[in-house]
Amino acid sequence: MRVLVLGGDGFCGWPTSLYLSDRGHDVTILDNLSRRKIDVDLEVDSLTPIVPIGERLRAWREVSGREIGFVSVDLATEYDRLAAILRELRPDAIVHFAEQRAAPYSMRSEKTKRYTVDNNVRATHNLLTAIVDTGVDAAIAHLGTMGVYGYGWSGTAPIPEGYLTVKVPTPDGDLEREILHPANPGSVYHMTKTLDQLLFAFYAKNDGLRITDLHQGIVWGTQTDQTVKDERLINRFDYDGDYGTVLNRFLMQAAIGHPLTVHGTGGQTRAFIHIRDTVRCIEIAISNPPRPGSKPMVLNQITETHRVLDLAKLISDITGAEIAYLPNPRVEAEENELVVRNDQFLALGLEPTTLSEGLLGEVKDIAARYAHRADLRKIIARSVWKRGMQTSDDLLTSLQPTED
Amino acid sequence: MRVLVLGGDGFCGWPTSLYLSDRGHDVTILDNLSRRKIDVDLEVDSLTPIVPIGERLRAWREVSGREIGFVSVDLATEYDRLAAILRELRPDAIVHFAEQRAAPYSMRSEKTKRYTVDNNVRATHNLLTAIVDTGVDAAIAHLGTMGVYGYGWSGTAPIPEGYLTVKVPTPDGDLEREILHPANPGSVYHMTKTLDQLLFAFYAKNDGLRITDLHQGIVWGTQTDQTVKDERLINRFDYDGDYGTVLNRFLMQAAIGHPLTVHGTGGQTRAFIHIRDTVRCIEIAISNPPRPGSKPMVLNQITETHRVLDLAKLISDITGAEIAYLPNPRVEAEENELVVRNDQFLALGLEPTTLSEGLLGEVKDIAARYAHRADLRKIIARSVWKRGMQTSDDLLTSLQPTED
Repeated sequence: MRVLVLGGDGFCGWPTSLYLSDRGHDVTILDNLSRRKIDVDLEVDSLTPIVPIGERLRAWREVSGREIGFVSVDLATEYDRLAAILRELRPDAIVHFAEQRAAPYSMRSEKTKRYTVDNNVRATHNLLTAIVDTGVDAAIAHLGTMGVYGYGWSGTAPIPEGYLTVKVPTPDGDLEREILHPANPGSVYHMTKTLDQLLFAFYAKNDGLRITDLHQGIVWGTQTDQTVKDERLINRFDYDGDYGTVLNRFLMQAAIGHPLTVHGTGGQTRAFIHIRDTVRCIEIAISNPPRPGSKPMVLNQITETHRVLDLAKLISDITGAEIAYLPNPRVEAEENELVVRNDQFLALGLEPTTLSEGLLGEVKDIAARYAHRADLRKIIARSVWKRGMQTSDDLLTSLQPTED
Repeated sequence: MRVLVLGGDGFCGWPTSLYLSDRGHDVTILDNLSRRKIDVDLEVDSLTPIVPIGERLRAWREVSGREIGFVSVDLATEYDRLAAILRELRPDAIVHFAEQRAAPYSMRSEKTKRYTVDNNVRATHNLLTAIVDTGVDAAIAHLGTMGVYGYGWSGTAPIPEGYLTVKVPTPDGDLEREILHPANPGSVYHMTKTLDQLLFAFYAKNDGLRITDLHQGIVWGTQTDQTVKDERLINRFDYDGDYGTVLNRFLMQAAIGHPLTVHGTGGQTRAFIHIRDTVRCIEIAISNPPRPGSKPMVLNQITETHRVLDLAKLISDITGAEIAYLPNPRVEAEENELVVRNDQFLALGLEPTTLSEGLLGEVKDIAARYAHRADLRKIIARSVWKRGMQTSDDLLTSLQPTED
């Protein structure tokens, strides 16, 4: 298949591009390198040393003998270029990662709130209109988030795969209706993914576009079978308070002797997936698109759920790291249960990679290897959901030898 | 109250601004005059001769002795100016009409689809972030649309006021949950109003903003008690295939001897409200905002429902006009029933102005008076929902004497 990967230079996009190329697909990355530029603004960098995109692609050519294309384009503002690329390449599938993806960054300031909405909504909508306008017959797989469902809304009912069957009372008795699961986003970032869902529903209905929305859990891990082949192919590793995500942050913190940062009680239950499964899920999704005229297919791209505090305790048991309970900068429930359906992915052949000491160790080793690159002032999460919310001071100001 | 009217130069915004000023409020209009500029692009003009905004405001000062402020600002792109205006004026209420509001225009081309999304989503989101950022304590009343609910989705159940109580099946039995009515938009324009709803829900929850979303039906009529006071205050009257709306178009068509243009079977049932009631509803809404911390209040701003064909027959009976059945350029159900709750507005004191021969005649008189300004090539609706859909040729190429 000829596949475009929008946002193919990012944390999920890069390993996905390599995986699809390795599997024999003809891959072109479209990216405006915004993720690297935001790091410049935040004065932070990936813990792992990522090389420029051109060097990444040269390394992949050397290692695999395969070519991945690259076009620098801003999907939110350069519609005409996007349409020209579609007309020229006529892809069979488009993987859409090209959105600002950090909840804390999306709540950091009025500027980042607006950037997140302006960029994400326009990138998605430009893509949809460009597909209609060019008549390209491409299946779309979009990275959504489990956060569209919210947490704790449906009691003991498992989170369904996108759609919920409810009973609507009428004068003639209850009517069964399948609805898109009600949106309960917890940040501006998550909100943009709920907006995307409505865009997808409309363009699937009006124009017959074939769209799969992947509601992904929190990704952990760093490397895949492809990114390990050469240090120049290494994936990015975010540890800072805005872009770092919970499990990877714990592993990095343990590696450098920093207390594990639990915000609030740690009673939040979240869904997880390893980066190796992310890339497999993407290929499964683009290989099994919905039929034209169907509503968007929604798949929950997760393999397991854990309470944040349980994860902290697990890492603490393995590594001896302390746990620090910090004020929660988010407006969210202190605790929630979470049961998630992922039947469709399992039926389509996903074999989940679950949390194991070996894999945790691999990530911790990566973190330890590049610990000298860590900026300790960037670890505490300080983007607050409302002005005036409390945040913690730095917990560690210089690197110490770790226990292992 | 100090009130900002965003989009205060448009068809609903202008009479609302005059009404609120007449009622003693301190009104400032924010508008980028986009509605007039779109007319330039479409090579069409209001049937009624509207004067420039500066002249409108001078006329109002002469007629009423009252001052309405005006700031030319693009809310979608000039965030910093918007924030500066909020800081300076610190309004008590903000009425938000500043969105592209025609469904056919929103489906006309990839460019107008993108303009509608880019403009509407950013205008609304910029407003919400600016209110949070400046700390202004203003109640917001936003013009939504009945089209967010879709038509025929809930069988014989009346359309509720925004929220629907449904039963969600769980392993422990059904759970009752109040949800935002599922979104079923019929055009890109309507879709933007469903996106607005999710923005409102988030900012009400996270930041305690006080928001009322007014799901308005199709507005008919032209004049209010204020706009009749001077010809320079006259309201705009759209008759073209993109911006004209069904009942006003029938009245205009009858006035100039054009067949009444029914698209499809005419079995579509829609909700209606007279422009005099629109302006009253706005004052009721800003005078009765929800409490901080409440979810957005949703009011259905409609007074009656009619089948399109019944309206055509009514106008035909009064005027002798023919009815022309034309191909439908929209993707929509041929027929639907529609029962709508508007209890809250009635309880808050709205006394509906319903369809009456006298009012219909008043509008027809306005249309007849300015019939010489009509461009007969602009009457047929030609913006199609999907490429290749059929449209009609012009039905009338020169003005004839009418029967009355």
